[in-house]
Amino acid sequence: MAGSIQSLERAAAILRLLAGGERRLGLSDVANALGLAKGTAHGILRTLQQEGFVEQDPDSGKYQLGAELLRLGQSYLDVHELRARALVWADDLARASGETVYLGVLHQRGVLIVHHVFRPDDTRQVLEVGSMQPLHSTALGKVLTAFDPVARAELVESEREAFTAHTVTDLDVIDAEAAAIRERGWAAAVEETWAGVASIGALIQDRRRNPVGAVALNGPVERVCTTGPDGRIGPVRPDLVVSVREAARAISRDLGAPRF
Amino acid sequence: MAGSIQSLERAAAILRLLAGGERRLGLSDVANALGLAKGTAHGILRTLQQEGFVEQDPDSGKYQLGAELLRLGQSYLDVHELRARALVWADDLARASGETVYLGVLHQRGVLIVHHVFRPDDTRQVLEVGSMQPLHSTALGKVLTAFDPVARAELVESEREAFTAHTVTDLDVIDAEAAAIRERGWAAAVEETWAGVASIGALIQDRRRNPVGAVALNGPVERVCTTGPDGRIGPVRPDLVVSVREAARAISRDLGAPRF
Repeated sequence: MAGSIQSLERAAAILRLLAGGERRLGLSDVANALGLAKGTAHGILRTLQQEGFVEQDPDSGKYQLGAELLRLGQSYLDVHELRARALVWADDLARASGETVYLGVLHQRGVLIVHHVFRPDDTRQVLEVGSMQPLHSTALGKVLTAFDPVARAELVESEREAFTAHTVTDLDVIDAEAAAIRERGWAAAVEETWAGVASIGALIQDRRRNPVGAVALNGPVERVCTTGPDGRIGPVRPDLVVSVREAARAISRDLGAPRF
Repeated sequence: MAGSIQSLERAAAILRLLAGGERRLGLSDVANALGLAKGTAHGILRTLQQEGFVEQDPDSGKYQLGAELLRLGQSYLDVHELRARALVWADDLARASGETVYLGVLHQRGVLIVHHVFRPDDTRQVLEVGSMQPLHSTALGKVLTAFDPVARAELVESEREAFTAHTVTDLDVIDAEAAAIRERGWAAAVEETWAGVASIGALIQDRRRNPVGAVALNGPVERVCTTGPDGRIGPVRPDLVVSVREAARAISRDLGAPRF
C-alpha cells in the first residue's frame, strides 16, 4: 500500500491556490503561501506547466491556471451520470416554472453546481456550472445537509457566514430545520443568501436511496413566494414545491431509485 | 533548476486517460494502459482521490474523474481575460446573426471552446465549453492555424481525420488556404466537420497583435451560406462574414490591440 505522494499533494495545493484569491501569482508568492523552498515550487510549477494545468504569463512571468483543467472539468461533467439523467427534467422544470434551475452535489464544504438551466427569458445570465453555493443558506445545501450525514459534518466544520439578515448560522436551529426537511421532503431558503431571492430544493437519490444530489429552483421572492393580503412576502408557493419535488423524483427514478 | 517530476507526469497521464475513452477504469486497466506497476498506479490514484481529482465508484471499485476538476476548470474560465472581454461581443453576434457563437483557443492539437453562446431560439442545445474542435476542418481551427505558427506545427503533427467528403486533409492544400486566410482575414468551413453545418471565423489579437484566440459563428448551410440560382449551396454570406470580423475586431480592441 503506497501512502499519499507529497509532490502530488503539493501540486494540488498550488492549483487550489491559483484557483482562489489573486489567481495570478509569481514563483515567490506560491512558495511563500505554501511554505515551500523556491526550487521545490519551481519544479512543481514547471511540470504543471508542461502538462497544461498551469500557464505562465509571458509579460509578468506570473502563473495562472491552464486550459487543460477546463477540458478535464468538461470530461467530469460528461461522465457524471446524475447530470446526464437530470438534463431533460431540469429543462422541463425551468420551462414550466419560468425560473432558474440548479443541480448540485456535495463537494468539500459546499454545493458544487453541476448543471444550470437559464431562466427561459431573453435576459443575459451567467452560467454557474462549476461554482459553489453554501450549505447552510441555500435550498440545495439544506437538502443535502438534511439527508447526507457527510454534508452535515462538513457544515459543522464550515464557517457559516451571515449573508443577509435572514441567514441562519446557529447549528441548533439548522439541525431543527433539517429534521423538518427530512419530514416533509423538501427545503426552502428565502433571502438567506441573496436579498430578494428564494429557492426551493428537493433530494435526488440513487438506486440504493443514497443522497447523490439535489435539484432547486431559484427566483425572485415576488414570483417564488406567496404574497399575503397585507402585500408582505409569505412562504414559497406550494405549486412550485410540487414541481420541484416531481422533478427530483423523476431524476431519482431515472437513476434507478425505487418508486416508493 | 528542477526537472519535471515523474509522479506528477504520471498523475496527469492518469487524468487524461480517465477523461477519454472508457472513463471508468479499474486499477489494473490504469496500470496496464500506462505501463505502471499496480502499486505505483494505486499510490497515485489514492492521492488523486484524496485531493478530489478522482472518485472511486463504491460498487465497482472503478475510478473516474472527480468534482475538483470541474471547480478548477471554472476558475480557469474566471481568470481567462479573453473570455471575459468577449462575453458581450459574442452575445451580440449570436443575437444579430441568430446563430451559435463559439470562442476558441489553441490547446494541444485542437481548439478548446472557452465560450459558447447558444443560438437564440427555444431549442435544446448542449453547452460545448471545455470540448475540443479539430484544427484542420473548422473555422476556428483554420484561423488559428493560419495566424499562429504553434497551431500550424500542432496541425502538422495531428491526425487529420476526414469527417465528411469536404474535409481537406492534405497539408499543401491546407497551407495554401491558410495563406489566403491570412490575406483576407477570415476563414470559412462549409460541411468540413459536420454535414450540413458551416462556420465563419476570425482572429482575436492581444495588444502585441499576438493571435490569442478566434471567434466563430456556426449554423446550417441553408442559413449561413448563399444559395445559387440553381438552388445549390454557395459560399458563406458576406454580411455574416462582416459581423464575425467586427466581433473579432471589437474583442481584440478590448484586449488592447491597436486599431490599425
